This record gives sequence, C-alpha cells and structure tokens, in this order.
Amino acid sequence: MKLLDGGRAPNPRRVRVFMAEKGIKVPIESIDMSAMEHKSETVTEHNRLQRLPVLILDDGTALTESVAICRYFEEIHPQPPLMGIDAVDKARVEMWQRRMEMHLLLLVANVFRHAHPAMATWEVPQIKEFSDANRPKVLASLVWLNDELEHRPFIAGERYTIADITAMIALDFMKPARLEIPVELTHLLDWYKRVKARPSSNA
Amino acid sequence: MKLLDGGRAPNPRRVRVFMAEKGIKVPIESIDMSAMEHKSETVTEHNRLQRLPVLILDDGTALTESVAICRYFEEIHPQPPLMGIDAVDKARVEMWQRRMEMHLLLLVANVFRHAHPAMATWEVPQIKEFSDANRPKVLASLVWLNDELEHRPFIAGERYTIADITAMIALDFMKPARLEIPVELTHLLDWYKRVKARPSSNA
Repeated sequence: MKLLDGGRAPNPRRVRVFMAEKGIKVPIESIDMSAMEHKSETVTEHNRLQRLPVLILDDGTALTESVAICRYFEEIHPQPPLMGIDAVDKARVEMWQRRMEMHLLLLVANVFRHAHPAMATWEVPQIKEFSDANRPKVLASLVWLNDELEHRPFIAGERYTIADITAMIALDFMKPARLEIPVELTHLLDWYKRVKARPSSNA
Repeated sequence: MKLLDGGRAPNPRRVRVFMAEKGIKVPIESIDMSAMEHKSETVTEHNRLQRLPVLILDDGTALTESVAICRYFEEIHPQPPLMGIDAVDKARVEMWQRRMEMHLLLLVANVFRHAHPAMATWEVPQIKEFSDANRPKVLASLVWLNDELEHRPFIAGERYTIADITAMIALDFMKPARLEIPVELTHLLDWYKRVKARPSSNA
C-alpha cells in the first residue's frame, strides 16, 4: 500500500489527519503540487483526474477522493470510529461531514480559488465576482455552526469524527483565503481550539 | 418514519430512486419547492438549512443530505447493496459517487443555477460568467466518463450502485440546464439508456 500525497492542500490533509487519529501509517510518496507534479504521468496513470491524494493498494487498485480513502481505512481499521457506529450514527456523521464539505469547505475553496493569484493557472477562468459572492456565505455558515456548537463538544455530537476534520481544515483554509472568524463566535472558536489541540491537527 | 420530499429537484430524486431500487416505502410528505415551502416552519424546524429531502425517524431525529439518508437506508436494508459490499468495494463506490457528484452533478447545477431565470431568487447573486465557465467542464467530464464506460456496464463496476443514480440524475438535469450529450459519446449514451430503462428511474 502506498499513499500519493499532496502536501498542505486541504484534501491531502483530510486523509492524513484521519490516519493520524487512527494511528495508521502507510508509506507516503510526496507529490509537489506547487511544481504541478500532480499532472505527471505517475499520478495520471492512477487518477486520470490528476488530483491528490491517491491510495494505491497492493493489487494496484487506486482509490481517490479523500472521503472514499477514509472510508477504506474506517472499514479495515474501525477503531476509533470516525464515521459512526450504528445506522443512525453513521448517517448523522455523514450528514455533518457533507454539510461541512458543501456548506463550508467548498465555499472557502470558492473564495480562495477564484481570487488568489497563485490559483490563476488552476482555476480557469478565475471569476472574482464568484469569489466575492461566496464570502458572505462562508460567514453565514460560521454563524450557523457556532449556534450548533453551543450544546455539544463536536460537530456531529459527543465524539470527534470525520466531520470535525473537514470543518477544522475548512477553517484552517480561511487564512490563505483571507477570511476571518468573527471573535463573537465563541462556541465555534472554543471548538476550533479543541480540535487544533489534538496532535492529529499537525498531520 | 416520514420523508419530507422535494419533488423533481435532483437531490430529492436521488433518495427516491435509491429507495425504489431497494423496494423501500415510507410515508411521504410532499413539500412544494416552487412555492418556496422548503422555507416554511415545518422544514426549518427539522433542517435549519431549509433544504430537502429530510428523513424524520420515529424518535424525531432528522436526517438530511441525500447521501446520508441513503446511507441510513443501506444500513437498515442492505439488499440489494448500492453502496458496496466489502472495504475496497465500499471505497470504490464512494469514490465514484463523489466523482459523479463533484465532477458532474455539481457542474451541471452550477450551469443551471447561475443562468436559469427561475433560479434568480435561489442563487443570489446569479453570475452568468460562472454558469458559462462550467459548460465546457461538464463536457470534459462527459468525455472522460464515456471512456470509463467503454469496458464496464455501470459507473463503479459490474453492479448498479448509488454512483449510477447520481450520474443519471446529473444527465437528466442537463435538459433544464440546456446542455446536450454529444451523440458521439456512445458508451455514455448506452449506459444512460440502460439506467433509464430501470423502473426506479421514474421515482
């Protein structure tokens, strides 16, 4: 097994934090996305979409899409559970993981990719107006999430899950996107401090 | 159990097709999204994001996000399996489901929502340039998918799965988005005919 890893970008980090929480170690091949190495033959051979990370199994099967790779690890290494423990819990975690993805991480990515000069060759065409349109949507999601976190310690409930990973990385990604967490969102900031204090956050 | 359903929109359909494939029937409460009833108190009480569908369990738990609702049904009603059967297969199906979502359905939705006059009060602001930017991306995804379908009957392999549901609904959604499948994409068109011939496609 081998992980083609993509460094500091949000999706590669999601998988590495997930693995750190489970204590899973696999050989890692670092691909330098800033040097556009994800467009190389090595990556393309395993993922025609030229995106990272890619997990290559011993039989050559290539798994892509961060959450699908996490699903594989959850199945072969169930402890600690990060994707739910029974039917309702699995659905609830998936609900929150998807909410954090579609209503937070994607919105921050839209702000970043459509405005940052470094993304000019990645997001073609960059549409500044679309970046700007996503800024208030990020803020609205943060306000909503702050309310949700008033009465529970983690995004999906009492336990840390993959939903916390996606949300933490979305908030980390706000910095290069030049977005700030309003200081009055204290429940959100307390939660952020809690998840950032976990050793996995450095993965 | 009760499903707050949202009619012909893509996400409500994903859940209904999934249920039809499994032969699952639950009481359905139809919410008229064209009359903006998803902004009603009934829906907001269960989903502050005011999106449909919402599955309400007997204990009052509200599950939202189409794929999370499908996950719940897959867990309590595993046959026929639509989300994979073992660790690798579950990951592969999730990979394809997500690829169909992020690289097809989302792109078609971007074209539709940012250009169609009926969406002017839904997508604020509508950015015509963003709609246009997504058109060639949809086409590129269709070409890629056509190649993928040359050697297998369904999106994720030999069996029909949730990835076929997402992809079929994305292609159905191309019509209101005023996008056409190029006639030379014969593998894709053959697959589309196959999935549309299933009774579930009318759900």
